[in-house]
Amino acid sequence: MNASGLFRNIQAKKSFLCVGLDSDPKKIPGHLSSHSDPVYEFNKEIIRATHEFAVAYKPNIAFYESQGAKGWETLNKTLTFIRRTDPDMFVIADAKRGDIGNTSGMYARAFFETMDFDAVTVAPYMGSDSVRPFLEYENKWVALLALTSNPGADDFQLIRDAGTGRKVFEIVLETSKSWAGKDQLMYVAGATRAEMLADIRRIIPEHFLLVPGVGAQGGSLEEVCKYGMNKQCGLLVNSSRGIIFADGGPEFGEVAAGKAKEIQTKMAGILEEAGLVPE
Amino acid sequence: MNASGLFRNIQAKKSFLCVGLDSDPKKIPGHLSSHSDPVYEFNKEIIRATHEFAVAYKPNIAFYESQGAKGWETLNKTLTFIRRTDPDMFVIADAKRGDIGNTSGMYARAFFETMDFDAVTVAPYMGSDSVRPFLEYENKWVALLALTSNPGADDFQLIRDAGTGRKVFEIVLETSKSWAGKDQLMYVAGATRAEMLADIRRIIPEHFLLVPGVGAQGGSLEEVCKYGMNKQCGLLVNSSRGIIFADGGPEFGEVAAGKAKEIQTKMAGILEEAGLVPE
Repeated sequence: MNASGLFRNIQAKKSFLCVGLDSDPKKIPGHLSSHSDPVYEFNKEIIRATHEFAVAYKPNIAFYESQGAKGWETLNKTLTFIRRTDPDMFVIADAKRGDIGNTSGMYARAFFETMDFDAVTVAPYMGSDSVRPFLEYENKWVALLALTSNPGADDFQLIRDAGTGRKVFEIVLETSKSWAGKDQLMYVAGATRAEMLADIRRIIPEHFLLVPGVGAQGGSLEEVCKYGMNKQCGLLVNSSRGIIFADGGPEFGEVAAGKAKEIQTKMAGILEEAGLVPE
Repeated sequence: MNASGLFRNIQAKKSFLCVGLDSDPKKIPGHLSSHSDPVYEFNKEIIRATHEFAVAYKPNIAFYESQGAKGWETLNKTLTFIRRTDPDMFVIADAKRGDIGNTSGMYARAFFETMDFDAVTVAPYMGSDSVRPFLEYENKWVALLALTSNPGADDFQLIRDAGTGRKVFEIVLETSKSWAGKDQLMYVAGATRAEMLADIRRIIPEHFLLVPGVGAQGGSLEEVCKYGMNKQCGLLVNSSRGIIFADGGPEFGEVAAGKAKEIQTKMAGILEEAGLVPE
């Protein structure tokens, strides 16, 4: 899928919601524990309940990896279930990988060949040759960390360069935007710093932004859209805990659907107001 | 294991060699392909052949992850085989993980609970809360990326801070050294920039350095020791391809043993000259 395809899905569903499948085995509803793969049962129900309100899913790989080989099977089955439920869904492996060139190539193989994700989140610290192997796959994306939503983001991402006066995350944007265009490269930019999205947009006006931190982490959807939206929407806004763990009982699917629909309805209003979809 | 334990092993074996188990399924000797788990057979032979010359093993997780769930089983079996062969061996998961706090906690669980590694390599881009969950495990280590050995290291690690004049990798060292002491925190510092190890040692004189890039990537062991060695040795020098893929035939184990012994012999000489072991 390219950027136009993603925008078409956003227009069709009047949504730019990404549902984060941060399916912590210790947090899923207790009544699922009798299943042989409780996390898979949980994910299936969440996907069934939310897919019409979302254009993307983003399993955070840590929650699967923590279960060892079994977790990787759960992840792969979940991806297959998403593809079966909605072939147009954009699926992001939130893996934050990155290594020297030939080794990043092995990570790319893991997520784009062994599994069939559309995108992988990648950490920029090791520079160009750690990112490029992921960009060698046609129709596959890198979501490169730029400005993250966590407190530790201040430690290194905001260091200001003596030469240009630019901050590290701005240099990451400036440097990496030549590695690939808006059809293969998007950026992770946290919602908890919405006003900084304006600075980001000055450097990369056209690339999509993957925005975590709305909801549980305190970011505001309206602020994110005010500073981050572009002519192709240009936003995938992620919500995880606020949707998938909204209820811990047997009705968790229905409750998750309600939460997702609530966000989608807000998004539809914003898209209409911006003239990106018919009212 | 703490830093003194690691130094005792270095003294006992007169070696600070770490063997990188970057066991690319496409590069292992063809005659192993008839086994049900060729990579595991390969790793067992490499471990049998090299363990008396090495104090550490470092599987790079990408090579296992690229095989999906099966690869994780291979990784876990390999770890068990190392423990059985030499209970004092220090084993590093070269995973380069890092995510927001609670999610890094899941990665820590993966490598320190689900599996029983001694250390994990962690990328610093997301800052303190992305690293701290790994440091909550007693007797477990973080090997934090500081200055890596790849060409892309120049892109962001060498940006110079407008306020202090320090480079990003120096700020990573300076900031993170308060997160844990030399018994839980070591740093990845590439051998291809040996002269920069002197700058690194001014900031963290006592911490261990995990040094990749000797051999195939062009770094020199003598240079690394000149600039990086401290009173507890303070170095784990990694070699991967130069040992494990030195031969592609049925004798690969013997050849690997020879290569490892060659490096260990050099290391013994350097340790003796530095007065860190009896001659």
